[in-house]
Amino acid sequence: MGVVERDIDDLLKNPANYTALTPLGFLERAALIHPTRKSVVHGSVAYTWQQTYRRCRQLASALTRRGVTFGSTVAVIAPNIPAMYEAHFGVPMSGAVLNAVNVRLNAQTIAFLLGHSQSAVIMVDQEFYTLAEESLKIMSENSKEKFNPPILIVIADEVCDPKSLQYALQRGAVEYDKFLESGDPDFEWKPPQDEWHSITLGYTSGTTASPKGVVLHHRGAYLMALSNAVVWGMKEGAVYLWTLPMFHCNGWCFTWTLAALCGTSICLRQVTAKAVYSAIANQEVTHFCAAPIVLNTIVNAPKNETILPLPRTVHVMTAGAAPPPSVLSAMSKQGFRVTHTYGLSETFGPSTICAWKPEWDRLPPETQARLNARQGVRYTALEGLEVVNPQNMTPVPSDGKTVGEIVFRGNAVMKGYLKNPKANKEAFANGWFHSGDLGVKHEDGYIEIKDRSKDIIISGGENISSVEVENILYQHPAIFEVSVVARADEKWGESPCAFVTLKPGIDESSGSRVAEDIMRFSRSKMPAYWVPKSVVFGPLPKTATGKIQKNLLREKAKELGPVKMSRL
Amino acid sequence: MGVVERDIDDLLKNPANYTALTPLGFLERAALIHPTRKSVVHGSVAYTWQQTYRRCRQLASALTRRGVTFGSTVAVIAPNIPAMYEAHFGVPMSGAVLNAVNVRLNAQTIAFLLGHSQSAVIMVDQEFYTLAEESLKIMSENSKEKFNPPILIVIADEVCDPKSLQYALQRGAVEYDKFLESGDPDFEWKPPQDEWHSITLGYTSGTTASPKGVVLHHRGAYLMALSNAVVWGMKEGAVYLWTLPMFHCNGWCFTWTLAALCGTSICLRQVTAKAVYSAIANQEVTHFCAAPIVLNTIVNAPKNETILPLPRTVHVMTAGAAPPPSVLSAMSKQGFRVTHTYGLSETFGPSTICAWKPEWDRLPPETQARLNARQGVRYTALEGLEVVNPQNMTPVPSDGKTVGEIVFRGNAVMKGYLKNPKANKEAFANGWFHSGDLGVKHEDGYIEIKDRSKDIIISGGENISSVEVENILYQHPAIFEVSVVARADEKWGESPCAFVTLKPGIDESSGSRVAEDIMRFSRSKMPAYWVPKSVVFGPLPKTATGKIQKNLLREKAKELGPVKMSRL
Repeated sequence: MGVVERDIDDLLKNPANYTALTPLGFLERAALIHPTRKSVVHGSVAYTWQQTYRRCRQLASALTRRGVTFGSTVAVIAPNIPAMYEAHFGVPMSGAVLNAVNVRLNAQTIAFLLGHSQSAVIMVDQEFYTLAEESLKIMSENSKEKFNPPILIVIADEVCDPKSLQYALQRGAVEYDKFLESGDPDFEWKPPQDEWHSITLGYTSGTTASPKGVVLHHRGAYLMALSNAVVWGMKEGAVYLWTLPMFHCNGWCFTWTLAALCGTSICLRQVTAKAVYSAIANQEVTHFCAAPIVLNTIVNAPKNETILPLPRTVHVMTAGAAPPPSVLSAMSKQGFRVTHTYGLSETFGPSTICAWKPEWDRLPPETQARLNARQGVRYTALEGLEVVNPQNMTPVPSDGKTVGEIVFRGNAVMKGYLKNPKANKEAFANGWFHSGDLGVKHEDGYIEIKDRSKDIIISGGENISSVEVENILYQHPAIFEVSVVARADEKWGESPCAFVTLKPGIDESSGSRVAEDIMRFSRSKMPAYWVPKSVVFGPLPKTATGKIQKNLLREKAKELGPVKMSRL
Repeated sequence: MGVVERDIDDLLKNPANYTALTPLGFLERAALIHPTRKSVVHGSVAYTWQQTYRRCRQLASALTRRGVTFGSTVAVIAPNIPAMYEAHFGVPMSGAVLNAVNVRLNAQTIAFLLGHSQSAVIMVDQEFYTLAEESLKIMSENSKEKFNPPILIVIADEVCDPKSLQYALQRGAVEYDKFLESGDPDFEWKPPQDEWHSITLGYTSGTTASPKGVVLHHRGAYLMALSNAVVWGMKEGAVYLWTLPMFHCNGWCFTWTLAALCGTSICLRQVTAKAVYSAIANQEVTHFCAAPIVLNTIVNAPKNETILPLPRTVHVMTAGAAPPPSVLSAMSKQGFRVTHTYGLSETFGPSTICAWKPEWDRLPPETQARLNARQGVRYTALEGLEVVNPQNMTPVPSDGKTVGEIVFRGNAVMKGYLKNPKANKEAFANGWFHSGDLGVKHEDGYIEIKDRSKDIIISGGENISSVEVENILYQHPAIFEVSVVARADEKWGESPCAFVTLKPGIDESSGSRVAEDIMRFSRSKMPAYWVPKSVVFGPLPKTATGKIQKNLLREKAKELGPVKMSRL
């Protein structure tokens, strides 16, 4: 050991040179630098950074006065409204952990989450008050001991039906703004003692199994907040539209990114193409995030709901399932600049990015879209990304063909699942976080998802990637949305079954003719064994974040029974 | 304690979710994403990110093979050339600490630094080979035991006189590229085991006392690298001109920022206005950093050396002494966008920023320049910034008047001074890092330096800020550069003494007439007791980073003797 590290006593951490990393400090800084700049806008309500900082401290103080403390959990059941944004700072400022609950879950599931997280306080948007009440009723009924109900705070929103607020108040709930008034706006919050302390707890939305509680830490939230800005080239003062729900992995950490950039959040209770275009036209929006399905809605919007050409470049980050190249290409033609990312709740939201290369500028749009539809490379804040053979953890060759499991490692990975040692052991096996997603690594080092392990269709012993079949089907002019799952097949074991929503204006009654046309189209574009043997029309079931629930489609396919030999 | 923090056993750090923060990973990432993009350009030499990564690993490997290991120190004596950039990655990849030495120091001082840092290897640019040799000779002569000389590596540069290289090789030095060849380009470097481990050691340039060894850690280097990009709005692929020496606080951590952004570094051996404009014209430069004196040179460049109007907005970050508002204003008129920052070697370079507020856009240029000349607010990566009464650490009121000491706290503060417990105790007193700079806090929370403690002139019991006197003098049309220090004064104890360099074209022989004019000008612009009683013409002594050496000017003022009563 050399001189510098030997001299250790003299070079220890001390209060002057070491502070636990936390995104909470971004808020204090934004309020100092841009006190009068808009922080959060929701309809006719607009707060400044000074006000938001004040309100968040009030929230922290009010919670503290009700006994909320280090390690408590505070649940919020709300869409993208200012109180939801404030909870991302106010709750951890009290030392507690924020549990942002998906508003589209049913009472049964919410009852499970609230019980599992032991939430001491529930902040609920007035529209979802009865949902919360119902959840508590279920909890009470299931409780073996005397049920000690959490404190219920109802968040008023002037755009909602006043009756739901009135009802909540009659039932004894405290109104959120009134609750804030019970807190001290000069509350002296402290950063966490340890940056490893938990900041949020979010439940997986369960396209697969039962919800698991993903625990995230202050360190990762801080690093991802900055990393979002760096990888996406987001500048100080960016204006961000909240199409992505904040209850989905804390809005991919953009809640905190916006504070780091002293930017402005434009809230959106309901995502429609019209609302998105209107916010772009009237609110100077520069950035938004959205699941691929939202992009699909935007590019298929009727002309009179659009405001094309766009008044400025609008940057769109998308993630989740790989967006079909056709959608990426259409967005690009409209002037949106789409950045494709990928990640999971367990990785603080997107933690890989399909970083655009200048040399792609010269390629034809379809090639661009194909390259850009890949999941890409690691985020700045993620230290390791690999595609491996999960048996022996050997990286697959960079051939774009060999399928392996996508694994993550680094500071953008969760602490673990709450009270779930078995799941943690599996998830963290061999020193990597296992995504459960299957993919390949291309020659240029970019990874690409081929499928979720359970979304692979095995037909006649051959693996079929349902994603690849979907990507081809999306090129069919009549298809608005499609999802392909395995259906039992008497001859082949499994065969692809396509669930399809047609574009508006396509005559639904012509179903069987369209189905035949889709199959003919498929035969001309893909290997015979990939061609869906069944096509089912209708709306697709989705999670709160717009992910198509393949587990439900698989159940539907099961109800259809196996494809008969005779049908072939 | 609530549920989440109680469940602790299950939520510990593990290799999948915790990695020591280090800027070294940025290089690996840049090489993966943009292998063929230019990383470092120097004259006719241009490397790609793939090559730079390869060369850095070779360097780490070659050093390791010579016994360099965790905690060793490797010194580099070089201007802004590719090898210097590579050392910022290759040296810490070997586990060692980089000691980047100011090339403008004399052999005596360098001998002290090399001995104090116990540097095991010295990489030296061919132009400075004899300087290194001389330093080693001094070390050898002063050594009480048998002197064990460090390994000497000479860095060839085709733009230099070949004789100096020839000489070095004759004396047995290894050539840098040859040294690299002895290393493995696939060397498997590892991140530091602990992010608190040291990455660099840099000696204060000593405008005041004898050099102190500032030890910086991987954690801070990582955070500052990202923070630079976020506060300055630097995007992926930025092209950065190296006017600021990398040996000055590791180029304010921009060495690592450029890797995080996969950007391009344009090297510059010698900073002249012509070279800066030429790089802007021919190399697509978007950003550079420079001491205020460099800005002064740029705005005063003869027309035929400029390329105005600029082909694109060029962002300039300046720090050090407050740049005179007149210079800021002139830069802005030329189309440069100047961001004013402030910091010290002890704070990883700039760690405060005069963040621009949109409402300033509407103000007159002089007001803008005055507001922008302030030191501002904390960087994203700095958690605490205050102006305090150093006796009791009470913050001064935000009145823009009450002077206190500027203190720092957070992750952008050094580990400490090497082998200097006394200095560390003073620097870290009361849980803050003490800058030794005096300033005020304005109503809007922005801080402004009034002076170094020792630069305050005390005249007739009144404090005079030498910086404020300088700012006014800079408005005089004949003054190119000015520095004001205290001179002993028989009547007043001390009085201001102005050392002045006149603009080119001003007749030097007319000195006394100009001096009188300057005093007349001063009397019309400042309180009588601020007016310099003495004006001395000539070039100003400067440190390697362009800081005017007030300590030398104070000595000169001493040599002049006290201002006599009779002269008044």
